Amino acid sequence: MYIHKTKLRVRYGETDQMKYAYYGVYAQYFEVGRVELLRSLGITYKELEELGFALPVVNYNINYKKPAFYDDELTIETTIKEPPSIKIIFNYRTLNEKGEVLNTAETTLVFVNKETGIPCLSPEILTTKFNKI
Amino acid sequence: MYIHKTKLRVRYGETDQMKYAYYGVYAQYFEVGRVELLRSLGITYKELEELGFALPVVNYNINYKKPAFYDDELTIETTIKEPPSIKIIFNYRTLNEKGEVLNTAETTLVFVNKETGIPCLSPEILTTKFNKI
Amino acid sequence: MYIHKTKLRVRYGETDQMKYAYYGVYAQYFEVGRVELLRSLGITYKELEELGFALPVVNYNINYKKPAFYDDELTIETTIKEPPSIKIIFNYRTLNEKGEVLNTAETTLVFVNKETGIPCLSPEILTTKFNKI
Amino acid sequence: MYIHKTKLRVRYGETDQMKYAYYGVYAQYFEVGRVELLRSLGITYKELEELGFALPVVNYNINYKKPAFYDDELTIETTIKEPPSIKIIFNYRTLNEKGEVLNTAETTLVFVNKETGIPCLSPEILTTKFNKI
Repeated sequence: MYIHKTKLRVRYGETDQMKYAYYGVYAQYFEVGRVELLRSLGITYKELEELGFALPVVNYNINYKKPAFYDDELTIETTIKEPPSIKIIFNYRTLNEKGEVLNTAETTLVFVNKETGIPCLSPEILTTKFNKI
Repeated sequence: MYIHKTKLRVRYGETDQMKYAYYGVYAQYFEVGRVELLRSLGITYKELEELGFALPVVNYNINYKKPAFYDDELTIETTIKEPPSIKIIFNYRTLNEKGEVLNTAETTLVFVNKETGIPCLSPEILTTKFNKI
Repeated sequence: MYIHKTKLRVRYGETDQMKYAYYGVYAQYFEVGRVELLRSLGITYKELEELGFALPVVNYNINYKKPAFYDDELTIETTIKEPPSIKIIFNYRTLNEKGEVLNTAETTLVFVNKETGIPCLSPEILTTKFNKI
Repeated sequence: MYIHKTKLRVRYGETDQMKYAYYGVYAQYFEVGRVELLRSLGITYKELEELGFALPVVNYNINYKKPAFYDDELTIETTIKEPPSIKIIFNYRTLNEKGEVLNTAETTLVFVNKETGIPCLSPEILTTKFNKI
């Protein structure tokens, strides 16, 4: 299991007229979460694409408990429980400054060969990182 | 069961560098889907808010099968299977012009009294619509 | 001079906590405006890209007079005053249902050869359309 | 003159299929720039709203010179040249990691009394900050 935390602040344009961070904006926040998790392992999502891999999301599920508000500094806690295989599952928790859990979520991404469009195994450069954990 | 279909076109700014409609943009598309379903019943989400109700999303789940691309005209098919109670569940299918199902999704929203912030029953003006179906 | 009008509705996620359509969302609305103007001439922006052209925006200027609100049905009025050369200038007016002008804007886009990245002349297929007007 | 620099990273969802950071996303980046400039002065935009002020944008102008790409760490350099009066003008430059200026922009915001909707003078708590500079 590998956990990474990253912080970001709710932008004005991300709020809606309910004064909440719009329910659709968390997809971007979790993308930031998983990208920064990878960076903390010494590999960037950008490099994975340059190596010829695409990682489309095949499932996304989120449970909203409490809203986030404008200018809140949120902690996105991203967890990988299993080493990547043909897919990689990220779990997320969003916390506000009081430490309240605002929501929990999960995304499943699959590895795809960008040229052929065919699903493939996680690149060794990534799998190796998890053997060390 | 009540089904409503609405059409929208993928905007350039909604694509990402994979050339796909970004996985996060469907939250907005489904919001359009449910808002137009309500309008087809003769009630607008705007009116619900003016009547003192808020409808925050408490769960959102989406399964991606195929991507949508720039300028694709998508059909958002929104379904309500059960009359609203303290919550209202919308099911969605996104189809492209070829009739391919790109993804399926579900959102659960709860009725909240805007003044007190306390969950409440669906307003009668809305519940009544479903008795007629 | 060629004028085209297209309609769109302010989405919930496009509002901010001021209850206004966020000031940043009009860039997307105007993109819809110019894309639909081109479509009305019988050519799509998608085709221009497939022909090897990119049209990055080099200047964008907008004057906001009045806000748009959630669920407002807006008319985006897009105008081309001069036939395209190495650049193409679009002028916009956003109107609400009362016919009030909410803002006026202008974008300048340049034609670029996608392979070389070098600026080039408007493709004949597009320039020809304007000779007929 | 007061200059503030803040950094942010281009998110995947902010790119488009040209592989550029979408031209419309800079409105959000500059909002981050001016919000962080205010914070550096010891006042937050959130506080200004709580004090009863709204600051709608009345003009936004941007010149694009070079694109930003996915995962680029950008510096948003925000400048105030004149103390705020009934309006406040922010100037921006976006720079990439190589120090290249990607674009320059300007936004004009006006102070409005949230209750009455009537334009008003900059709150003293803000004006005072500039007397000290």
